[in-house]
Amino acid sequence: MRTELERLRVDGARLRRSLEAMAEIGATSAGGVQRLAASDEDRRARDLLVFWLDELGAQVTVDEMGNVFGRRAGRDDALDPVLTGSHLDSQPRGGRFDGVLGVMGSLEVLRTLRDHGVETERPVELVDWTNEEGSRFPPAMMASGVWAGALTRDWAYARTDVAGLAFGDELARIGYRGPARCERRPFHAYYELHVEQGPRLERERRTIGAPRGIVCLHWYDVYVEGTANQVGTTPMEGRADALVAAAEMILAVRAMPARMGGGLVATVGEIHAQPNSRNVVPGGAHFTVDIRSWDDGLARRGWEDLREEFGAAAERHGCGLRLEETWRVDHNEFAPELVARVRDTAARLGYSTLDLESGAGHDASYMATLGPTAMVFVPSIGGRSHVEVERTSWEDCEAGANVLLQCVLASAEG
Amino acid sequence: MRTELERLRVDGARLRRSLEAMAEIGATSAGGVQRLAASDEDRRARDLLVFWLDELGAQVTVDEMGNVFGRRAGRDDALDPVLTGSHLDSQPRGGRFDGVLGVMGSLEVLRTLRDHGVETERPVELVDWTNEEGSRFPPAMMASGVWAGALTRDWAYARTDVAGLAFGDELARIGYRGPARCERRPFHAYYELHVEQGPRLERERRTIGAPRGIVCLHWYDVYVEGTANQVGTTPMEGRADALVAAAEMILAVRAMPARMGGGLVATVGEIHAQPNSRNVVPGGAHFTVDIRSWDDGLARRGWEDLREEFGAAAERHGCGLRLEETWRVDHNEFAPELVARVRDTAARLGYSTLDLESGAGHDASYMATLGPTAMVFVPSIGGRSHVEVERTSWEDCEAGANVLLQCVLASAEG
Repeated sequence: MRTELERLRVDGARLRRSLEAMAEIGATSAGGVQRLAASDEDRRARDLLVFWLDELGAQVTVDEMGNVFGRRAGRDDALDPVLTGSHLDSQPRGGRFDGVLGVMGSLEVLRTLRDHGVETERPVELVDWTNEEGSRFPPAMMASGVWAGALTRDWAYARTDVAGLAFGDELARIGYRGPARCERRPFHAYYELHVEQGPRLERERRTIGAPRGIVCLHWYDVYVEGTANQVGTTPMEGRADALVAAAEMILAVRAMPARMGGGLVATVGEIHAQPNSRNVVPGGAHFTVDIRSWDDGLARRGWEDLREEFGAAAERHGCGLRLEETWRVDHNEFAPELVARVRDTAARLGYSTLDLESGAGHDASYMATLGPTAMVFVPSIGGRSHVEVERTSWEDCEAGANVLLQCVLASAEG
Repeated sequence: MRTELERLRVDGARLRRSLEAMAEIGATSAGGVQRLAASDEDRRARDLLVFWLDELGAQVTVDEMGNVFGRRAGRDDALDPVLTGSHLDSQPRGGRFDGVLGVMGSLEVLRTLRDHGVETERPVELVDWTNEEGSRFPPAMMASGVWAGALTRDWAYARTDVAGLAFGDELARIGYRGPARCERRPFHAYYELHVEQGPRLERERRTIGAPRGIVCLHWYDVYVEGTANQVGTTPMEGRADALVAAAEMILAVRAMPARMGGGLVATVGEIHAQPNSRNVVPGGAHFTVDIRSWDDGLARRGWEDLREEFGAAAERHGCGLRLEETWRVDHNEFAPELVARVRDTAARLGYSTLDLESGAGHDASYMATLGPTAMVFVPSIGGRSHVEVERTSWEDCEAGANVLLQCVLASAEG
């Protein structure tokens, strides 16, 4: 790459202003954002992004899943583009950096190229993926999944929220069920800048993380069936208390990772008791199990262990047990040459780096199944994410955007 | 009592028809009823009761809490009346005997007296207490509590359901915010026929239970505060998982009664995790504890034990802990001479009997603080209650009503 291009840097103050403007849309009282997929807040965030893309002179396309593309032509516009992006939707009472940084960082990359009159050999396209979080309409990474061909459009349209509203209808309601087909196109590289959402960069005092890929993600649903009964009149010895059995299972989940090792994590995040009344012995309990590991086999062995412990706990308490294997995505490796580029670029720019894995799923998960993909991580203060206090320093946001800029440039010239 | 009166028996077939007619109001698909306080179903049940009371020639009064009284005059109508009743409201998806048996049994007593032209020395009054369950508008036993002077009418009116509707408004809406003052009046005796809601009568193969009183009822709310975080990116060692800490506490509650002995029972019936999302480490957990015992001191010592264990569990997991002592009613003894009358009357009628305690609260709890009170228990099949499969055999319903009839007669003549 020419030295001149290597000296290009983003405008950190402008990036901060973009992030702050976006954080006003769906802002929560505790400093986070709530911008669920296909909500009015999601529409307003998209409108602002499209306004900025128009202002840049980018060619804007909205596809039938609501994915927004902003394309900057290349010198040879027939070449496969370099894609760079993330998502603008948030968790319920989520943070203002998760996803948004990758979209605003990509916008800042396009703006920097425009400011300096840089023409790239390949086209560069910003992408805002719809419904990455999956909080309102499960599953997560829905629209990149459809784009990748892993999910179908009509199945996605039919997903409903807790109020029974369908995703396809809500997407149309906010005006983002676009005309373009949602299907994979060849791309030369896909980059996604994102906050780490964990504590490792901060603990190791590094600025840039170069994840080698994304850990596996195994989801299970556990249903315990006991016998509901009046609490005051039912002796302890005769009870089949589904919540007590579930409590033993939750502790089994907590204990399993230490036994398995290898950085595996396992979590019960969600629980529902039935009838959930203080004077009725719980007749039912439903909880979720989330297991993640770089080693898919280890995660499966962890689950096999849990199955046995769950069965024993249910039997001890005279409860029935039903297990659902809800979703399994195995670990996903990014393109080693792009991962090396992220690491080397960061080092060249004077940033400390760390090799790690992503513990969270990202749109990059699906993209990695289609073509060369890498991510750029920046530190999360206190390792907090999916919460309103999620924060990343402005300096680190700028550092990440500079690494993204240089990686995009290298790919777009390559 | 005269031998002629001692030979009086209720009409079991008619009692069954009344119970079946009442079970149609708010009937659920699984054979239970849902007739929440001040709902349309509650109104229809009351309308039917009032229709039957009118048909009997009873003097019907509805008070400002919606309590329905049906009075049959005595030879000396200035004497304190004998009260007999229970409640017509149900748990959500509850059973068709809980409460209803006591009201329909009392109606059958009045009908039997009418059929045989029996005049009693004292007046006999049927009572249907409003909102005994407290499921829609906590607390339980609300209207007998106001009648007894333990709660105030306006406080009760202001209680809201989950939709934010106020009890007083809903009671007016269904037309049962009556003109009569809701306040205690002297009574000679109060009897309440009820299903046991537990397994003891069935296990011991007895027909009639003569409870000596009602166990204490201590309610607590426990709030555990952890740190919410993305599950995939947060290592196990750094977590403050509120649900894991709560699971340890739930097992502590389950283990405590065996240590305390004395028939004490302790239950976690309700749990809520925050944000309750499968990919977020729970940042908060709230659960309830219900402790019941005949020995109030034992119940308090059990709670003191739990407080220590909860504190240790919270500390182990780096969580904060807040404990609320929500409600405490100490144990309540019925009038020994009335309890003996229930036992002796049942024996005289040829029914097997059992001395026991009531593990559940009843309107009789408040009545026992005001005057001579006793209950008549009949077996619950499988010990099940507060569930749609709650059942009592028709023979046992008839037996209970016969005991009630003879006890009411003895008091009304005494």
